[in-house]
Amino acid sequence: MSTRIGILGYGNLGRGVECAIRQNKDMELAAVFTRRQPADVSILTETAAVANVKDIPDWKDKIDVMILCGGSATDLPEQTPEYAKYFHVVDSFDTHARIPEHFARVDAAAKESGHVGIISVGWDPGMFSLNRLYGNALLPEGSDYTFWGKGVSQGHSDAIRRLDGVKDAKQYTIPVESALEAVRSGGNPQFTTREKHTRECFVVLEEGADAKKVEEEIKTMPNYFADYDTTVHFISEEELKANHSGIPHGGFVLRSGVTGWNKENSHLIEYRLKLDSNPEFTSSVLIAYARAAHRLAKEGQSGCKTVFDIAPAYLSAKSGEELRAEML
Amino acid sequence: MSTRIGILGYGNLGRGVECAIRQNKDMELAAVFTRRQPADVSILTETAAVANVKDIPDWKDKIDVMILCGGSATDLPEQTPEYAKYFHVVDSFDTHARIPEHFARVDAAAKESGHVGIISVGWDPGMFSLNRLYGNALLPEGSDYTFWGKGVSQGHSDAIRRLDGVKDAKQYTIPVESALEAVRSGGNPQFTTREKHTRECFVVLEEGADAKKVEEEIKTMPNYFADYDTTVHFISEEELKANHSGIPHGGFVLRSGVTGWNKENSHLIEYRLKLDSNPEFTSSVLIAYARAAHRLAKEGQSGCKTVFDIAPAYLSAKSGEELRAEML
Repeated sequence: MSTRIGILGYGNLGRGVECAIRQNKDMELAAVFTRRQPADVSILTETAAVANVKDIPDWKDKIDVMILCGGSATDLPEQTPEYAKYFHVVDSFDTHARIPEHFARVDAAAKESGHVGIISVGWDPGMFSLNRLYGNALLPEGSDYTFWGKGVSQGHSDAIRRLDGVKDAKQYTIPVESALEAVRSGGNPQFTTREKHTRECFVVLEEGADAKKVEEEIKTMPNYFADYDTTVHFISEEELKANHSGIPHGGFVLRSGVTGWNKENSHLIEYRLKLDSNPEFTSSVLIAYARAAHRLAKEGQSGCKTVFDIAPAYLSAKSGEELRAEML
Repeated sequence: MSTRIGILGYGNLGRGVECAIRQNKDMELAAVFTRRQPADVSILTETAAVANVKDIPDWKDKIDVMILCGGSATDLPEQTPEYAKYFHVVDSFDTHARIPEHFARVDAAAKESGHVGIISVGWDPGMFSLNRLYGNALLPEGSDYTFWGKGVSQGHSDAIRRLDGVKDAKQYTIPVESALEAVRSGGNPQFTTREKHTRECFVVLEEGADAKKVEEEIKTMPNYFADYDTTVHFISEEELKANHSGIPHGGFVLRSGVTGWNKENSHLIEYRLKLDSNPEFTSSVLIAYARAAHRLAKEGQSGCKTVFDIAPAYLSAKSGEELRAEML
């Protein structure tokens, strides 16, 4: 029997989940929930419903796993514990510092209702976290490195857009290739912020705006750009649309460490993601963990979990026998 | 309380496990077991015993996890089920085709005695398998690629050593960089055997041996070399010892796949290992899974498992709270 999925929030992430469901035959989209008028929201899946968030409790017996596709700032801290009352839930909560608190709230709600909640699912947090854990467990004496990009940072793009005179903007975070190579070569290098990533900005100005002034404001912006080597390109609105409308991202997690009685041997573990679409890949991870949530629940488990707590086999539609024969 | 480890077999892998135990404060080496006279075997850990394999049953209450460091051809098929009667067991059984059969035998023995057995632990099978599974679960429509090396292949080195006129030899398996780049660039390329790896051989001849003949015999050897571009270097015994006595290895697991309603976006997941010492890294993986075996057993689990069945958190000495705060 299929796992019946609900999607709450139909932005880039929600649409990504809808697409991912189509690639997994054991998954079925039951409904998309929106704060808007359902009639105003058009989805891709002909067999699925569109409903208003206020009607979510009515779907209690028609949905197995609700995937929460809202933002981490205000949506998920409320929604994930709330909807764990009715369904198994999966979210991509990514405010690293607030994960312990979010975990506790989802855990309490999910345990009380007998559901499984999996939080902070995606690639960072998510697959990158897994690789940090595996790397540290396998090489307990070593160093961790995470590089992001090349990819679009929504937060940095927004920060540029808020400047006077800026009509639109896209910011790419780019790992410094020589820093990556230094890690790969061993020796556990230490880096400043500036040495690890550069930032490249494509900016569309309002008519009559002062390019020099905007460029200076970007490059000196505290936290966002001041600590980086930043390049600013002024381009036309057409060019931004034609060449910079994708949402690529990715990055690298590396663990270097030593083994041997006298720590004489060095090892490097490198995990890399190169993603055309950040939200669609995140969605694919969400769907794999939705499968896991449903399975764990069938085994009688409940409460909040993270990617650390889920055995890999639960992510796959294949049986244990198939996995051992084909992938081990 | 520490996990008390026994090591069966004191070759490169057994010595690697001994070194790995020293890097993990929650692990303690209780004893090394050997088929030789214990007095003839000198180990590095002053606090541990050396004992004969025939006395293993006497250690039933003094060891938590026995790590089996023998070979997959004849040792492990017998040893892992046998010693699962007395201890939790972990092995690095790597004959891919015989894993289902080995799993069944270890499962039966471990269930009967109430122990946990984890088989096929290491990097391939092991970490590479995990990355194949994660990659396939996250990108169900795509292609898998595994490249090995640069590293020493024991089997290929042995095959050369068996030739008439060869005194000693070391063979390196080397991934073809342009094939790796083709995968990273997308387009799901297909490769012949020859296009993925090359083989480089360093050979010490017996006095008076015919170099031309040996080179020809290597390059045309079916299964081992005939399907590859192979380079043969004749060197002195001293040079072999000076420059080729290490056991480096590693490789790449890549998954490329598509997402989107019309499969319009491509993604690449790449996992790479670069290992100075193949046996020491394998040993580090064995120790992390020994920790998992002991923990799973404390939760009341029994039977045979593989890396697919173990939640990542079980590999780490850190608590769930610590992992969520530090690594998620």
